[in-house]
Amino acid sequence: MAGSSWGTLLTMTTWGESHGEGLGVVIDGCPAGLTLQEEDIQKYLDRRKPGQSRYSTKRREGDEAKILSGVFEGRTTGTPISLVVRNTDHRSGDYSQIKDVYRPGHADYTFDEKYGFRDYRGGGRSSGRETIGRVAAGAVAARLLESLGIQVMAYTRSIGPVEIEESRFDREEIGRNSLCMPDAAAAFHAEEYLQQMMGQKDSAGGVVECVVTGMPAGVGEPVFEKLDARLAHGIMSIGAVKGVEIGDGFAAAKSRGTQNNDPFRMKKSEKKPVKTTNHAGGILGGISDGDTIVLRAAFKPTPSIGASQQTVNRQGENVKIVIGGRHDPIIVPRAVVVVEAVTAFTIADMLLQSMTSRLDRIQKFFSQE
Amino acid sequence: MAGSSWGTLLTMTTWGESHGEGLGVVIDGCPAGLTLQEEDIQKYLDRRKPGQSRYSTKRREGDEAKILSGVFEGRTTGTPISLVVRNTDHRSGDYSQIKDVYRPGHADYTFDEKYGFRDYRGGGRSSGRETIGRVAAGAVAARLLESLGIQVMAYTRSIGPVEIEESRFDREEIGRNSLCMPDAAAAFHAEEYLQQMMGQKDSAGGVVECVVTGMPAGVGEPVFEKLDARLAHGIMSIGAVKGVEIGDGFAAAKSRGTQNNDPFRMKKSEKKPVKTTNHAGGILGGISDGDTIVLRAAFKPTPSIGASQQTVNRQGENVKIVIGGRHDPIIVPRAVVVVEAVTAFTIADMLLQSMTSRLDRIQKFFSQE
Amino acid sequence: MAGSSWGTLLTMTTWGESHGEGLGVVIDGCPAGLTLQEEDIQKYLDRRKPGQSRYSTKRREGDEAKILSGVFEGRTTGTPISLVVRNTDHRSGDYSQIKDVYRPGHADYTFDEKYGFRDYRGGGRSSGRETIGRVAAGAVAARLLESLGIQVMAYTRSIGPVEIEESRFDREEIGRNSLCMPDAAAAFHAEEYLQQMMGQKDSAGGVVECVVTGMPAGVGEPVFEKLDARLAHGIMSIGAVKGVEIGDGFAAAKSRGTQNNDPFRMKKSEKKPVKTTNHAGGILGGISDGDTIVLRAAFKPTPSIGASQQTVNRQGENVKIVIGGRHDPIIVPRAVVVVEAVTAFTIADMLLQSMTSRLDRIQKFFSQE
Amino acid sequence: MAGSSWGTLLTMTTWGESHGEGLGVVIDGCPAGLTLQEEDIQKYLDRRKPGQSRYSTKRREGDEAKILSGVFEGRTTGTPISLVVRNTDHRSGDYSQIKDVYRPGHADYTFDEKYGFRDYRGGGRSSGRETIGRVAAGAVAARLLESLGIQVMAYTRSIGPVEIEESRFDREEIGRNSLCMPDAAAAFHAEEYLQQMMGQKDSAGGVVECVVTGMPAGVGEPVFEKLDARLAHGIMSIGAVKGVEIGDGFAAAKSRGTQNNDPFRMKKSEKKPVKTTNHAGGILGGISDGDTIVLRAAFKPTPSIGASQQTVNRQGENVKIVIGGRHDPIIVPRAVVVVEAVTAFTIADMLLQSMTSRLDRIQKFFSQE
Repeated sequence: MAGSSWGTLLTMTTWGESHGEGLGVVIDGCPAGLTLQEEDIQKYLDRRKPGQSRYSTKRREGDEAKILSGVFEGRTTGTPISLVVRNTDHRSGDYSQIKDVYRPGHADYTFDEKYGFRDYRGGGRSSGRETIGRVAAGAVAARLLESLGIQVMAYTRSIGPVEIEESRFDREEIGRNSLCMPDAAAAFHAEEYLQQMMGQKDSAGGVVECVVTGMPAGVGEPVFEKLDARLAHGIMSIGAVKGVEIGDGFAAAKSRGTQNNDPFRMKKSEKKPVKTTNHAGGILGGISDGDTIVLRAAFKPTPSIGASQQTVNRQGENVKIVIGGRHDPIIVPRAVVVVEAVTAFTIADMLLQSMTSRLDRIQKFFSQE
Repeated sequence: MAGSSWGTLLTMTTWGESHGEGLGVVIDGCPAGLTLQEEDIQKYLDRRKPGQSRYSTKRREGDEAKILSGVFEGRTTGTPISLVVRNTDHRSGDYSQIKDVYRPGHADYTFDEKYGFRDYRGGGRSSGRETIGRVAAGAVAARLLESLGIQVMAYTRSIGPVEIEESRFDREEIGRNSLCMPDAAAAFHAEEYLQQMMGQKDSAGGVVECVVTGMPAGVGEPVFEKLDARLAHGIMSIGAVKGVEIGDGFAAAKSRGTQNNDPFRMKKSEKKPVKTTNHAGGILGGISDGDTIVLRAAFKPTPSIGASQQTVNRQGENVKIVIGGRHDPIIVPRAVVVVEAVTAFTIADMLLQSMTSRLDRIQKFFSQE
Repeated sequence: MAGSSWGTLLTMTTWGESHGEGLGVVIDGCPAGLTLQEEDIQKYLDRRKPGQSRYSTKRREGDEAKILSGVFEGRTTGTPISLVVRNTDHRSGDYSQIKDVYRPGHADYTFDEKYGFRDYRGGGRSSGRETIGRVAAGAVAARLLESLGIQVMAYTRSIGPVEIEESRFDREEIGRNSLCMPDAAAAFHAEEYLQQMMGQKDSAGGVVECVVTGMPAGVGEPVFEKLDARLAHGIMSIGAVKGVEIGDGFAAAKSRGTQNNDPFRMKKSEKKPVKTTNHAGGILGGISDGDTIVLRAAFKPTPSIGASQQTVNRQGENVKIVIGGRHDPIIVPRAVVVVEAVTAFTIADMLLQSMTSRLDRIQKFFSQE
Repeated sequence: MAGSSWGTLLTMTTWGESHGEGLGVVIDGCPAGLTLQEEDIQKYLDRRKPGQSRYSTKRREGDEAKILSGVFEGRTTGTPISLVVRNTDHRSGDYSQIKDVYRPGHADYTFDEKYGFRDYRGGGRSSGRETIGRVAAGAVAARLLESLGIQVMAYTRSIGPVEIEESRFDREEIGRNSLCMPDAAAAFHAEEYLQQMMGQKDSAGGVVECVVTGMPAGVGEPVFEKLDARLAHGIMSIGAVKGVEIGDGFAAAKSRGTQNNDPFRMKKSEKKPVKTTNHAGGILGGISDGDTIVLRAAFKPTPSIGASQQTVNRQGENVKIVIGGRHDPIIVPRAVVVVEAVTAFTIADMLLQSMTSRLDRIQKFFSQE
């Protein structure tokens, strides 16, 4: 069944395989009049590009975004925006090793079960390169949100056992270290840990955190299209994500009502209620409460490792596999922009949906046109 | 915007407020020929009914399910199944306290922001009673799954700081204690903890775990309709859930590739590959791998507590609120069946979707008709 | 598969069989703050009720609408509106004749092929009573449109060979004759024709026309969710409809560009362009142009006739069927309100969708909140 | 709002403007294992290409389809199929004439009203070139249907007042004349008529008919996703279509029950019921009955004509417009393949949906895997 689309009013439909002709996305429902250039998208794609640090593959993809439709004279026209990134480094490698063998932790086996066969080159559709479409779409959504005063920012919260410390949180630091951590000391320790993993032909996972500021209250549709439910869906759809939290998340399950409830107080300057704490992560009853939205995504360790592993092949034989080549010991730093992109896109879609909740506002809208 | 529907081929649309005429659900797309009686649904509803233990409200609702359509001569007809539960205990209470005051941790403020006003009686649509529709629909989905050899089972994994121990896991115990814990010792300690919370006019959260056995491989649609993504969406849409995990979840983020990758081995008896461990929780690349599906949901502490809290009212004044009446110090045991229901429904829908992934199977299907 | 829902932002999900417990609809996504009473819905239901004229069945259904949710203190809350009509006249009739025999022109055979069996009582889900849910939902949509200055009105354009004459069009006449024709002379002739059909145990079809006034320009989403495409979908989904036209419809296929193109002229009073003719029926490129929307639906003759017909039974035998009881020789007059309801609902949904097409308007919307 | 996608299980998302970089479509949900080559798509695109006859524009577009994803080793993989056609003839023309003037019968005005501005080059998104994506997707759907024994065929039924005669229907003739009429004499007369229109700087409309053979019974989802309703939606979404009929269509409205009802008889050779006539056009109650599906689409006259027309400009002034260049006096022959494509795609999607209607078949499906 069709599963490559995301969103209701603002949608993205992604396509492409790791070693096919290219990858891309069609964004539909983007409001007309948004200024948009290829550079806006390229900035996001560059953040997920391989070869940025010693912890990512050396594959040299330009990953250059090209806008094929939906933008005229520098502005979106309201019609579908088609973005394409051509694969330039898809040299015909030696896939004999993985063609008929199911790599543990990968989707090789499940794709074969589901579809009968698969494009095995570089993981095909289940490759991390699939995220190119999401990131490109997220870049457009982020611009849309910015034009409405909303900012989305993600960063690495932990790598393996190394977690950032709130007291050392430094937003500027995110861009300074190759692990995207807002804590220089944690980044240092995480690097050490990754060196150790690489030495052992092993890999690490980690947690990405994402915050959204400038949100209006009232976004999210009870009861199945709650804002947190949509975010959980989008985030969990990112490859390698095994857990999603909003606000205090699993820690809330150990907390008490007296601690976890966020008191409201009037903010005199803005004449509206604000919460004095934010255990809820900016969402109450599935609807944004005007506070910062906070979510976290748990990424499993990169399944491609250099160590020898037990598995089976298509012929139903028990075999050993040693995956050749260089492997990223961690995908988390490259996934930061993916989380940011999916969050931005989901928020933008839900924001548009929230416009139709009140008759008085609808009446005003149409009377002003 | 419409947000009360869930599913693609098999859908549910829920409706109803805590103190309105009733609550219900329309299930559409249920295959024809499934035997179904009101008792099948009642069994599930009874598990979420209040008044079952000392930790849940004494409200005496019969919560009797009535089938209004879609079943003929004891079998589903393929047309929409309308299920209704009438509210019988909605005596006109004294809502003056919460009518104009925003209870911390509740959706009062966000509903007002979104809709301009709200049905304040008992929380209206944001009440836990909203889950009646989900549970009724889940009961139907569970029957459908059973007829295909798939079982869904949920239980309480932890309450506050008290967690079950794997070594003491006893499936039979789930039904024996009022906390739905598969570990009698943990249940005992959790009860003590809850007594303590009640004494302090406080409340607790917890974690519900759900396992699905008998799953065929190949269910789940890359890349946005992955099985885990849909499950995360469904589970996070349950009120009070703040986190969702698949398999090892957040623990995987701290693990290593060599540990987290599940090796495949041939299972001679079944002539198919099986994983020797299940860190993945039965899902690889968003597609079921034939193993047991494992997920967990983190519930925050019940926001309704007896202790005095700071908040604001509709008039924009800082006030204190002491929520009168009796409160559940924990909702987790009653939420167990809700998690089970949402999981069953989501799995059933995705299972049907998976039927169209391979041309050879489609050809066979139509040639046999 | 689920097929009982209609709409994107404003949705209806209908349920119910002719002789089951009842029929109903869940309307989701209705903006909060709309005043709504059961009487508003009853007015529409009464227009489709049987027993209104000598051309409709004598079945005495009260068809009383009951609101079960989504309305509080006389206004919609933004949550799902559940409407139920109980079947009161479903006496257990003698269905031996149609239980195993496929009535020509009916859905008996196709339901059996699709679902394996069917609720044969009174046609089950394929009965004309299915439209109760649509009409109830359309009544709500009509109120929503009215609150935004938009009016929807349908009437009978022709019955069998008898068509109204434009020169005699009299809006007031629609409510005066039992055939809902805006032309008294045509109604008189149509009555004669129907008498003739009844005498011959035969039946007639006809055409319903629907006009929408007060539409803003800009409603409709290229390219698959064009306003006319959505209307065609909704109208064709009404039982017995075999054709749909917008504006000049099939006559346009015989016209010429110089005649069919509607010239634009500035309307000084409104400072906006208007068309001097309306062959387009108010829709250009799938988007409303601000002019009156005009559509027509062709209804086939009632398939239930008293004359003897050739058919087959479930056992695969050739048999003759004479359908006992009284039959409506025409369903068109009762279908008028159904066309109106489906049109109103579809327009309302598309109107809400159109709110997100321009960034400048979205920015204004959120800055004003 | 997003409106460029069509389908539920099998979806297409089209993009592209007349004079942008190119046009294309992403097809998602195509079952894995279908053999597919660019030639399969090119054959369809060539049928809609301009410059094929003296009645279509001389624009020389190669309209070459390129497959960018979703096909591996000559077979579909089950992942999205991205098809692109680059615009090669988009020389920067002189658009000063239409940039600020609303062409009558075109979507210029409504696009401006909806989006605030538009890509005016060659009609932008509202150009007939938009259909390239549909046709490419339809080619894939047609292959899928063929592999299941279903054939879709469209042809020109009438041009202006000239209609084919059933008695002269010759399937082979469709490909012989440039008007795609299955009646050589009618084609001859239609050519004469078109010459006349061209001489008068005028244009003509016409009717396309489409038939689907080999359909299984049971396809179509009551009550809103009826097969005829989906077809009407898809067909009406094609630019310039103003009417859709199924079976006898509007003629049925003038017929009688005794004539319009199709009797069933047992077909001994196939041991199943067949209808002895097909006024229903192969669909009863919104579900395919196993007979040939018959539909018709009414196309309005080409709005671009050489004659001088009255209209207004963006500045709100009354002006005259004479649209320069050569114009197709008729679009119907080129639209034949568009109707065929949309029909094929819609049927394929609904066919897949119909697989989940019966539990017994679902059980068999999963037990055989």
